[in-house]
Amino acid sequence: MGRALASTLLKAGHEVTVWNRTPGKAGDLSARGAREAPSPEEAIEASDLTIACLLDDASVRETLAPAIGKLTGRTLVNLTSGSARQARELAGWLEKHGVRFLAGGILAVPPAVGTDEAVILYSGPRDLFDRVAPALAPLARPHWVGEDHGYAALYDMGALSGMYGMIAGVSHAAALVHAEGGDVETFTREVLQPWMEQMLPLMFADVDPDESNAEMQATGLETMISTSEEAGVPGDLAGHLRASLWEMRRATA
Amino acid sequence: MGRALASTLLKAGHEVTVWNRTPGKAGDLSARGAREAPSPEEAIEASDLTIACLLDDASVRETLAPAIGKLTGRTLVNLTSGSARQARELAGWLEKHGVRFLAGGILAVPPAVGTDEAVILYSGPRDLFDRVAPALAPLARPHWVGEDHGYAALYDMGALSGMYGMIAGVSHAAALVHAEGGDVETFTREVLQPWMEQMLPLMFADVDPDESNAEMQATGLETMISTSEEAGVPGDLAGHLRASLWEMRRATA
Ligand SMILES: NC(=O)c1ccc[n+]([C@@H]2O[C@H](COP(=O)([O-])OP(=O)(O)OC[C@H]3O[C@@H](n4cnc5c(N)ncnc54)[C@H](OP(=O)(O)O)[C@@H]3O)[C@@H](O)[C@H]2O)c1
Ligand SMILES: NC(=O)c1ccc[n+]([C@@H]2O[C@H](COP(=O)([O-])OP(=O)(O)OC[C@H]3O[C@@H](n4cnc5c(N)ncnc54)[C@H](OP(=O)(O)O)[C@@H]3O)[C@@H](O)[C@H]2O)c1
Repeated sequence: MGRALASTLLKAGHEVTVWNRTPGKAGDLSARGAREAPSPEEAIEASDLTIACLLDDASVRETLAPAIGKLTGRTLVNLTSGSARQARELAGWLEKHGVRFLAGGILAVPPAVGTDEAVILYSGPRDLFDRVAPALAPLARPHWVGEDHGYAALYDMGALSGMYGMIAGVSHAAALVHAEGGDVETFTREVLQPWMEQMLPLMFADVDPDESNAEMQATGLETMISTSEEAGVPGDLAGHLRASLWEMRRATA
Repeated sequence: MGRALASTLLKAGHEVTVWNRTPGKAGDLSARGAREAPSPEEAIEASDLTIACLLDDASVRETLAPAIGKLTGRTLVNLTSGSARQARELAGWLEKHGVRFLAGGILAVPPAVGTDEAVILYSGPRDLFDRVAPALAPLARPHWVGEDHGYAALYDMGALSGMYGMIAGVSHAAALVHAEGGDVETFTREVLQPWMEQMLPLMFADVDPDESNAEMQATGLETMISTSEEAGVPGDLAGHLRASLWEMRRATA
């Protein structure tokens, strides 16, 4: 992801300095004009705006800790995925060191970075966002979601929940059909994908409870569970989903 | 659902006889020309083709058992949701009684019945399907999925798995954002729905593992779990999803 970000900034005409823990991963970035810094400190010193995109919050902390003095008076945009609390705690630590900070969450896979489809969620001070948004815009559509530094992570994780739900549903469907000797490719192309495309907008519409009553839905889930058991599909995704659905319904009721 | 089916058949110009366990539920169907039969036997005798759409397999068995003699030499299309095994066992029982049988699964909510969007999956003898498909076509696009009577149910449940996965993902996302005081409506409209619409086709594409490596995905799920815990969102959908994903991956590997 870091390589996709740096490459897109280069393409947009920015001066880019890159750093990676394991050297030599810059690939063709150097040939295209990126400067490789030998340490986080030197990467930070190279400009007013530092973008971090590492594995997780711990790796960001570990990388920044010895270099934190260099960030004072500069701006850090952290595009590493993490939890809302991690973002808030990072914000507190950076504020103590006089670092201007925006938290971000990337809603895109690396090949989509720099395309119209990509969105990056940002949270933190609105005026800071307005100041850096033009520089960040080539990466993805910048979408500010609130002053609370935790919100980019929260909305990012919300979006990922939706995606993981889809992945789990599709995986379970494929496993079911596969286990009963069905043709997964035909099933997916002819039945599953068109159906999910048709259903997705309905997930966000208000459903008339009379049209899909609770008893019928409950029976549907029971049938899904028995179908899974018959098929010998492990994992009881259906049972997980049932538990989740009822609990989520209670939580948001 | 029974009412939507009967109404659509009436609109298509069919002669329709209806039966429901609790009398008086035909609503305006009678005024529009449907004959109400006082018993399943009399409903069956009224035509060569009987369509069943009740709560579940047990209710179909219970309703047909005393009337089974009347079905001999006639055709039954069962649009009640059930498991693949239930459909196969029903097929065995009906065959013993000389009933021609198609199993079906409705991929539509009642208001979509009779529209271009609705699909009904059928399984059972191909020649029987070819014979009754013209009569059934007004209900929904008839889609034959195999000789095995269990396949309509299997593919139907596969499709529902996909849908339940989406519902679980959307519910979890909404619960997360709600728990942290975010604006669920704005989040859903501006972030979640566009993101899921963009991601859905990718669920069915071959993903380059280099673009989304396993360690990064695992970290993403861990972050989702800690975000849920922080938000106090019950149910651990994220944990369920993690369990499901890894198990399904093993099952289909
Ligand atoms: N890939 C996607 O589709 C995607 C989408 C949205 C968001 N994201 C987020 O973007 C971030 C990066 O993802 P990615 O796909 O680039 O993951 P990745 O390919 O696994 O890269 C992880 C990067 O983090 C570095 N790193 C790991 N531990 C470190 C440590 N302790 N100190 C310093 N550097 C460390 C690695 O350096 P080495 O090269 O030295 O190992 C590598 O550069 C993650 O937070 C991910 O959730 C990714
Ligand atoms: N609604 C949907 O969105 C939808 C979508 C696809 C498939 N389906 C499937 O369609 C079928 C019917 O769904 P629905 O929405 O119409 O459910 P519903 O509104 O709950 O209707 C259930 C029907 O079954 C009857 N019934 C229940 N137990 C019975 C028994 N022991 N003997 C005889 N009749 C009995 C009920 O009669 P009473 O009026 O006497 O209670 C009622 O007519 C289900 O298998 C469902 O999974 C529904």
